[in-house]
Amino acid sequence: MIQRIAVVGAGSFGSALASVFATNGHEVTLLARRDSLIQEINQHHTNKQYLPGVSLHPAIFATSDEKHIANADLIVLVVPSHAMRETCERIAPLLQSKSKVKVAHATKGLEVGTMARMSTVILDSCPFLQEQNLAVLSGPSHAEEVSRELPTTLVVASASKSTAEYIQDMLMNRVLRVYTNPDVVGAELGGALKNIIALGCGISDGLGYGDNARAAIMTRGLVEISRLGIRLGAAFNTFSGLTGVGDLIVTCTSRHSRNWNAGYLLGQGFSLDDALQKVGMVVEGVRTTKVALAVANEVAVPMPIASAIGDILFNQKSPRLAVDELMSRTRTHEMEPFIQDATTGWMFP
Amino acid sequence: MIQRIAVVGAGSFGSALASVFATNGHEVTLLARRDSLIQEINQHHTNKQYLPGVSLHPAIFATSDEKHIANADLIVLVVPSHAMRETCERIAPLLQSKSKVKVAHATKGLEVGTMARMSTVILDSCPFLQEQNLAVLSGPSHAEEVSRELPTTLVVASASKSTAEYIQDMLMNRVLRVYTNPDVVGAELGGALKNIIALGCGISDGLGYGDNARAAIMTRGLVEISRLGIRLGAAFNTFSGLTGVGDLIVTCTSRHSRNWNAGYLLGQGFSLDDALQKVGMVVEGVRTTKVALAVANEVAVPMPIASAIGDILFNQKSPRLAVDELMSRTRTHEMEPFIQDATTGWMFP
Repeated sequence: MIQRIAVVGAGSFGSALASVFATNGHEVTLLARRDSLIQEINQHHTNKQYLPGVSLHPAIFATSDEKHIANADLIVLVVPSHAMRETCERIAPLLQSKSKVKVAHATKGLEVGTMARMSTVILDSCPFLQEQNLAVLSGPSHAEEVSRELPTTLVVASASKSTAEYIQDMLMNRVLRVYTNPDVVGAELGGALKNIIALGCGISDGLGYGDNARAAIMTRGLVEISRLGIRLGAAFNTFSGLTGVGDLIVTCTSRHSRNWNAGYLLGQGFSLDDALQKVGMVVEGVRTTKVALAVANEVAVPMPIASAIGDILFNQKSPRLAVDELMSRTRTHEMEPFIQDATTGWMFP
Repeated sequence: MIQRIAVVGAGSFGSALASVFATNGHEVTLLARRDSLIQEINQHHTNKQYLPGVSLHPAIFATSDEKHIANADLIVLVVPSHAMRETCERIAPLLQSKSKVKVAHATKGLEVGTMARMSTVILDSCPFLQEQNLAVLSGPSHAEEVSRELPTTLVVASASKSTAEYIQDMLMNRVLRVYTNPDVVGAELGGALKNIIALGCGISDGLGYGDNARAAIMTRGLVEISRLGIRLGAAFNTFSGLTGVGDLIVTCTSRHSRNWNAGYLLGQGFSLDDALQKVGMVVEGVRTTKVALAVANEVAVPMPIASAIGDILFNQKSPRLAVDELMSRTRTHEMEPFIQDATTGWMFP
C-alpha cells in the first residue's frame, strides 16, 4: 500500500532514503531548509553538494514547509545529532494530534550534555509519541552507494515487531535488503560509538601502521564499545551484526569517512583544530569520544582504546606514544568477563 | 628463560614468527626444504621469495635436518593444511620419547576428505602428544607486517592456560600483543572459514559493488561461519574476536589476500581455473568452501552466502545472479535463533 513519507533533512543520507522510498512507489516529501536546494531537488532531481553525480527519484517533493509533516504516515528524521532536539521540539505541535504516527530516525550520535540516545531525545521532546511506533535505521550504508543502487543492507530496530516490519516492507527492494532487530539501544549505540573506533583507525593509518594494526583496533575497539553498550542495556549480539561490526567495517575501511579522515590527519601530526578545519564537515566521533568516556567513567566500564583516543584528541598526547602504551599493557586474556558469565565452560580449567 | 624453538615451514608466516622468537632472545631453528633458501636465510638473513625487502633476525638457524626438532622445547608448525598430516607423520618418531613437548601450529585450513581441524590432524598423527600441550596461533597478522615490526595482535588458543601463557610470554614484545583464549575449536574454525568470506568479498568487488555490499557480506558471512562453528563446538564469542572478525577484516580488506584476489577475478568474469592460474598460489578458500559446505550439509546448518559462493566456484553460476538471489531472499530478522535461546528478552514481544 502506498504510504506518505516525510523525510526531515536533505543531507546525503536523507536524500538517498527519500529516493529509495520513492523508487518503491511511496509518496515522499523531503524537508529541506535552503530554497536553492529545494529548487534543485524539485527541478533537476539532484543534490549536487551532498550526492554529486547522483540522480534522485523525480517524484520526490522537496519543501521547507513543515506543515507537510502532519500528513505523513511515517516521519523519518535524518538530522545531525546536535539538531535532533531542536527539530523535534519544532515539529512537536504538528504531531500532537497524531499520536499514532510512526517515527524513524537515521542519526548516528549521542546528545552532548545529556548523553542521551536519539530515540530518547525524540520521546523527550514529543512525549505524546508511543515507543512502539518508534524505529531506528542503521547499518553499513554509505549514502552515495545507496543512492546509486549498489547492493546494501540496513537494519530497522524497534521495540515493536510490526513497526519494524512496516518500515522493512517499505524499504526493501532488489538492491536494498533490510533486516529487523528488536534492540533499539544496541543499534543506536553501535552507530554512535563506532565513530570513535573510526578515528582510531585513521590515527593508526596516519602513523603509517598497517592492516594488522587497523584490524586489531577495530576488533578490540568493538569489544570496548560492546562492553559499554551492554552496561547501558544493549544486547551483545547486536554489536556483532550489521549496525555494529558491519557499520564499523564500512566506516573504518573507507576513505570517504570523515571520522577516519580526521584521525588520519591526527596520526600525521596535525592538531585537532587543524584536522577538523581540513575535514571541513561535522566529525561526530570527536563529540562521541567525549560523551562515551564520560559515560564509561560514570558506569565504571574500562575503555583503553577510547581513552587513548581521548588523550590524543583532548590532552595533546602523541599518537605514537598512545599506541605504544596500548601495545604494552599487561598481557591479557581475549574473552570478556561478561561473556564468561553468560555461558559455561569458557574459562580455562 | 631462553627456550629452544623449532619452526617447521619457512614460508612467509613461518619466517616471520621465527624472527619474532629470535628477536625476543630465544634460540630458533627454522626447518626449510630447499637448500638455496636455507643458504639464503643463514647467510643473508632474508627470504626474498616470501618476504621481499625484509631482514630476518640474524640468529635464526635454518636447516633441513629434522633431527633438530627433537631438541626443541616448543615446535611451531607452519605448513599448508594439505601438508600437515604428512609433516606430522614424518616427525612423529622424533617426538615419541618427548611426550611433554609443546606444539603450536599457525595453519589456517581444514583437511580435505576428513574435514578435520589441524589440531585433530596433529593429535591423530602424534597420538602420544597431550592435548594440554597443544596450541593454535591465529589472528589478524599479515606475515609481511609482522616481520617489519608493524603493530600486530595475535591470539594463542589452548585447552591449557599455562601452555597458552607460556607461548604468550615468548611472543609478546613492544610491537606484538598476544591474547590468550581457551577456545581452540573456535580459533581454528574462524581462521579456516574466513577464507570463504574473503572469496565472497573479492567477488563483490570484482562485480563493481561497493563498500556497503562488502560490509554486508562480511557481517552476514560472519553470522554464517559462527553458526557452523557453534554447531561444531566453538564458542560464539571467539568469532567476535581477533581470530574471527579480526582475521576476517584483515583478509577481506587487503589486496594482498590470495582469496580476495581469486574472488575478484571470478567477479570480473574469469573461470575458476583461470582465476587460480592467475593468482598462482594456493587459494585455501576454494578447498575450504567445498569442505565447509559438506560439513554444513551434514549437520544441517544453513549457509546462504557460502552456498552462493560454492555455486559460483563449482557450478558455473553467474556471480551477478548469485548476489541478486542473496539480496532478494525472504525478508528476515537479524538475530539468530541460537542467540535468542541463549539469553532472554531478545525476541520481539
